[in-house]
Amino acid sequence: MIDLFVIKVGGNVIDNPTLLDAFLQKFAAIQGKKILIHGGGKIATRIGDQLGIQSNYVNGRRITDAATIDVVTMVYGGLVNKQLVAKLQTNGCNAIGLTGADANIIPAVKRPVKEIDFGFVGDVKPEDVQSTALKALLEAGMTPVFAPLTHDTKGQILNTNADTIASSLAIALSAHYNVRLIYCFEKKGVLHDANDDNAVINLIDRVIYEELKADNVLTDGILPKLENAFAAIESGVAEVLIGHADDVQSNTTDTVAGTLIR
Amino acid sequence: MIDLFVIKVGGNVIDNPTLLDAFLQKFAAIQGKKILIHGGGKIATRIGDQLGIQSNYVNGRRITDAATIDVVTMVYGGLVNKQLVAKLQTNGCNAIGLTGADANIIPAVKRPVKEIDFGFVGDVKPEDVQSTALKALLEAGMTPVFAPLTHDTKGQILNTNADTIASSLAIALSAHYNVRLIYCFEKKGVLHDANDDNAVINLIDRVIYEELKADNVLTDGILPKLENAFAAIESGVAEVLIGHADDVQSNTTDTVAGTLIR
Repeated sequence: MIDLFVIKVGGNVIDNPTLLDAFLQKFAAIQGKKILIHGGGKIATRIGDQLGIQSNYVNGRRITDAATIDVVTMVYGGLVNKQLVAKLQTNGCNAIGLTGADANIIPAVKRPVKEIDFGFVGDVKPEDVQSTALKALLEAGMTPVFAPLTHDTKGQILNTNADTIASSLAIALSAHYNVRLIYCFEKKGVLHDANDDNAVINLIDRVIYEELKADNVLTDGILPKLENAFAAIESGVAEVLIGHADDVQSNTTDTVAGTLIR
Repeated sequence: MIDLFVIKVGGNVIDNPTLLDAFLQKFAAIQGKKILIHGGGKIATRIGDQLGIQSNYVNGRRITDAATIDVVTMVYGGLVNKQLVAKLQTNGCNAIGLTGADANIIPAVKRPVKEIDFGFVGDVKPEDVQSTALKALLEAGMTPVFAPLTHDTKGQILNTNADTIASSLAIALSAHYNVRLIYCFEKKGVLHDANDDNAVINLIDRVIYEELKADNVLTDGILPKLENAFAAIESGVAEVLIGHADDVQSNTTDTVAGTLIR
């Protein structure tokens, strides 16, 4: 019996007020304990541009320099996070907006410099997550809402991938709950036919996964998502679901619209 | 026996990295349960200027229009609040950064328009504070750190005076704790001689207050602070202390450097 939903929603929903309002209404209506992790969206780039801060990319990946970490701390940790909280509150969801620095819930390590110096980017290990603090909030009836930020425990905020935060929280909280980790993305789920958006495979386990791979059904884009899903399951997460933000409510039930992985 | 300190620190300390680091070290070292409320500081005005947002004032009072509430939500609720949290964490204080929207702790009412439309400014009533949620955080060993922001419970963040938040939280939490409410300001305390910064009056009660007023010892600046202090005490707060940010640690002991009001 699933008793905690850990749900990640991406920047594409954050950036679109209509999609966002619809998503937040559905998220608020989900029964039981839940956690939301939100991506950043493009607003940080826009505000950074207005502040004259150049976005630097190496091999297509953004570098978080000192000016940029301040912008994302403001925009993700302040503007986006608190607006989500205020909107969830008005929908009857007792949201509490957090970063990984708050209550030291997600200590991280600044990514070591190899070929590329990514700057103030944090890497998270699930075993470092302070799940007891998070459990206290959940048991007090609160719904934690995380911005994609952590800290290095030495006073520095770090920019951190929202998917990684979601899987790390889900793994750590599996010590206390039966967790379904839900990734909202732009498709309804894993498709049996890449040209048919409604050809959703509703259940994938290891056996089915190997068959789908052998049959070359899976696209390159979905393979790493499924690998990450199985990695989370092997680390204790009961179920992973990949589905559309529009379907988030039904994806917390037994008859899912998306793809349930277990 | 005091078992909770509610401490407000102003923008002048927030704006000065050296003062701020010294203050946070002292705050982190305070034993027992504590809450910090921080003012905004001038950084919101600077970032607003860079974003091309005009600061509008009427009779010397800032108007919080739609663009300005976004800036203060970013800067106070994101940048300033999360940097304080990260720094407190590295000093061994288990800080959790919040606005009044988080866990619906401080519901507020948008200030009614009379002669002046202050815009997105919130007025708080202590009886509306959700002290049970705050108590859950304190009992879980966390130190709440509040940005000067609340919400209208209809999805809108509101700019709110940090002194008012501090006194409202202190009054509401007096249902659960014996509270000392500490205001850090630029003097060591209430002075017996306005020209001698060390002539601190260490204890003021109603009788002494009336005597000081009769003797014209008190300056115009300190009178409203003392009136607010007595109002908080009449609403259940055990003690109010007015003192310097440098003295915050000793001002949580029995032998205060500042002015204890009770």
